[in-house]
Amino acid sequence: MSTASRLVDATIVTQDRAGTVIPNGEVAFDTHGVITYVGPARGPAGPEDHHLPDAVLLPGLVNAHTHSAMTLLRGSCDDADLATWLGVVQSLEQHMSAADVAIGLRLAMVEMLHSGTTTFADMYHWDANLLGLVTEAGMRVSAAHAVFDFDSVAFPAVSQMSGRDALTHTEELAKEFAGDDRVQLRYGPHAPYTCPPDMLAEVATRAQHTGLGVHIHLAESDFEVRNTLKTYGRRPILHADHAGLFRVPVLVAHAVHASREEVELLASRDAAVGHNPVSNLKLGSGVAPLASLRDAGVSLGLGTDGAASNNSMDLLEEVKMGALIHRGVAQDPEQITATDVLNMATSSGARAVGYPHVGVLEPGRWADIVAVRTDTAQATPLFSAPAFLTFSARGSDVREVFIGGMHVLRNGELTTINETTVREEAAEAAQQLARLAADQR
Amino acid sequence: MSTASRLVDATIVTQDRAGTVIPNGEVAFDTHGVITYVGPARGPAGPEDHHLPDAVLLPGLVNAHTHSAMTLLRGSCDDADLATWLGVVQSLEQHMSAADVAIGLRLAMVEMLHSGTTTFADMYHWDANLLGLVTEAGMRVSAAHAVFDFDSVAFPAVSQMSGRDALTHTEELAKEFAGDDRVQLRYGPHAPYTCPPDMLAEVATRAQHTGLGVHIHLAESDFEVRNTLKTYGRRPILHADHAGLFRVPVLVAHAVHASREEVELLASRDAAVGHNPVSNLKLGSGVAPLASLRDAGVSLGLGTDGAASNNSMDLLEEVKMGALIHRGVAQDPEQITATDVLNMATSSGARAVGYPHVGVLEPGRWADIVAVRTDTAQATPLFSAPAFLTFSARGSDVREVFIGGMHVLRNGELTTINETTVREEAAEAAQQLARLAADQR
Repeated sequence: MSTASRLVDATIVTQDRAGTVIPNGEVAFDTHGVITYVGPARGPAGPEDHHLPDAVLLPGLVNAHTHSAMTLLRGSCDDADLATWLGVVQSLEQHMSAADVAIGLRLAMVEMLHSGTTTFADMYHWDANLLGLVTEAGMRVSAAHAVFDFDSVAFPAVSQMSGRDALTHTEELAKEFAGDDRVQLRYGPHAPYTCPPDMLAEVATRAQHTGLGVHIHLAESDFEVRNTLKTYGRRPILHADHAGLFRVPVLVAHAVHASREEVELLASRDAAVGHNPVSNLKLGSGVAPLASLRDAGVSLGLGTDGAASNNSMDLLEEVKMGALIHRGVAQDPEQITATDVLNMATSSGARAVGYPHVGVLEPGRWADIVAVRTDTAQATPLFSAPAFLTFSARGSDVREVFIGGMHVLRNGELTTINETTVREEAAEAAQQLARLAADQR
Repeated sequence: MSTASRLVDATIVTQDRAGTVIPNGEVAFDTHGVITYVGPARGPAGPEDHHLPDAVLLPGLVNAHTHSAMTLLRGSCDDADLATWLGVVQSLEQHMSAADVAIGLRLAMVEMLHSGTTTFADMYHWDANLLGLVTEAGMRVSAAHAVFDFDSVAFPAVSQMSGRDALTHTEELAKEFAGDDRVQLRYGPHAPYTCPPDMLAEVATRAQHTGLGVHIHLAESDFEVRNTLKTYGRRPILHADHAGLFRVPVLVAHAVHASREEVELLASRDAAVGHNPVSNLKLGSGVAPLASLRDAGVSLGLGTDGAASNNSMDLLEEVKMGALIHRGVAQDPEQITATDVLNMATSSGARAVGYPHVGVLEPGRWADIVAVRTDTAQATPLFSAPAFLTFSARGSDVREVFIGGMHVLRNGELTTINETTVREEAAEAAQQLARLAADQR
């Protein structure tokens, strides 16, 4: 439950379909955390209100693909390709305890809240304790418990669960958190190279029955495409479709190497794609066909991927990268616009990850609101608030964050997590992991 | 003159040739602002010293290509190609007064100092007053007074100077500031499409006589290549060489469309290249052949270009972009490493812009030192300080900046510029420019 409040005199980037920007605006929300008014300011701020003349307001950002707990592995392997990187990362991950995953998640939430992310779609080893940490922090999550079904995969110590047990575990969590507006569960078959076709088929069958969605990595690297072609005779997205996966709502992470046929398939199956430009570049995976996906009508979100392949959880940084990379590679500065990418980080991203009631500042939506300070050199002059958010603002400029009306970042300080404790515990846990991995080598 | 001081207990990324990183290190400098010691800490910090256990120290960053005063035009034209963008920007620039250029420069310096840049190579309309503002701020500049020699170019109101007068003006400024270790002058022929071949030839002849270097835009866009081929029968870099330009030290901005032959030519002529990944992507110019330039042995620097095509002056952001884009496009995560790009932003960049006595933390160099805070989530865990600087750190993490030992940023606050005044004056000047340009349309 939150206090009804008004945010007054800010510039409001509503992210509605018309792209409305309101100077000297006001956003008001009620005690249920639901927006009741967005428009020109209706008078000065009262004692319960927030006077924000030096801020741009926008909807809470949506991170459409990440592995939060991997913040613990940040910087553990750089300058390496996906296959090499997976090896190093898994040598560390297999020593991760439940406590390690919890501290990694909390570290990620510290970073996400500081930089304006309020909702995240996450594939990792989820349990009720971890989901409780998310609601304690006040965030929203679309949680996919990762499913690995091959013996060759180094499981983290925390999750020595078989593929089918992982699906049942997901269903139990979904029941436990049913009705919680901050928690959604998805099935998380990791990828075609870690889940055989019968597992993908079983996921689809179960999902049709339970109504849960799916979150999967597809077509991330050229290596994966060649591997899937060799093993199954089909490219990854066509392969997943052949297994029946797209009978249910699927959030596809990456789709870097989606062929034209696969792009059309994703659109016709109403699949969503979480685009991760920084991770795709860092691991040398390539550049996704974003304009084709957009033009085909695929729902698009924007993600950081895990911090081990980024190495940041700052979605505003991802926004700038997403706005730049495609126009540069295509030598066409109008191919992907600032608006396209801001939509991916808010309105379109919210739909992509299954939270349609966030992502836009308008009455009836949840009051997930971010205030970005503009009393800085890089916000001067301020010819265009959307251009500022896309090309100049940094996550560190975020000063206030509300989620469902709850004030989770107040003047740059977290109200729901003890940041110092989390950092200290995370640094210690990461050192311990590195020691364990080194001892084993 | 600075106070002799020690920076104690920080992690030091020296940027020397061996890539030495020193945990719990110390940097000491004398009253002349020259480094006297870099190594393990030699005891606790005294009253004049700085105790920085939560910081990574690195050399002051070098911005190898910018147009500082264009901060006033930040966000004035986005989602447009180089030719369209030049039109919009020049419609504003032609109304810029000398006062506007000064306030734009000061705004840029606020942003650069906050994000750790201590030296910048700048092409704009320079005069003694502006150079005085740089030394007042405590920064180092390689200033190139822009030379336009075609009637078709819309000159800023401030500089209705002919090409040859501009060269003479440059020489006069060089004489006036001779011996100042914070100011260097270069000739600034803008580009092959704004300076005819006889102007390039005259620049080279004068430079051979005066010993001044040159700063020029070459091979920025495909449009420029086709235009130069059509008009002169040669690609831009070959064309400039044919005019004799490379008889003297040249800093080439961009080289996005350098052919293999041109890459070899740049190497054989000892030219330097200022690489501007964000601007090249934003304007849809393309992706420079950075690995080829590096492998050929060309001196490389990293630049933001002007804020109107970025829209930021944060060189750490540029470092991350430079480390990502090439590996992603080439699908080779080892093509350009974190080390390559950090070198471009420091040691190699310093050589590229003509300041060989900065860019490395070692005895005998100027004490241009940046402290980046690590008491943050995105610096946790800290497996590798260079990886942190490349992939996780943001300009906003810079807490302390010293230039020649002078403490110009102290705990995140500028000591040489009144930031609030600068921001207010800049916002007002930009609004006035927009009004003048609108009135004329």
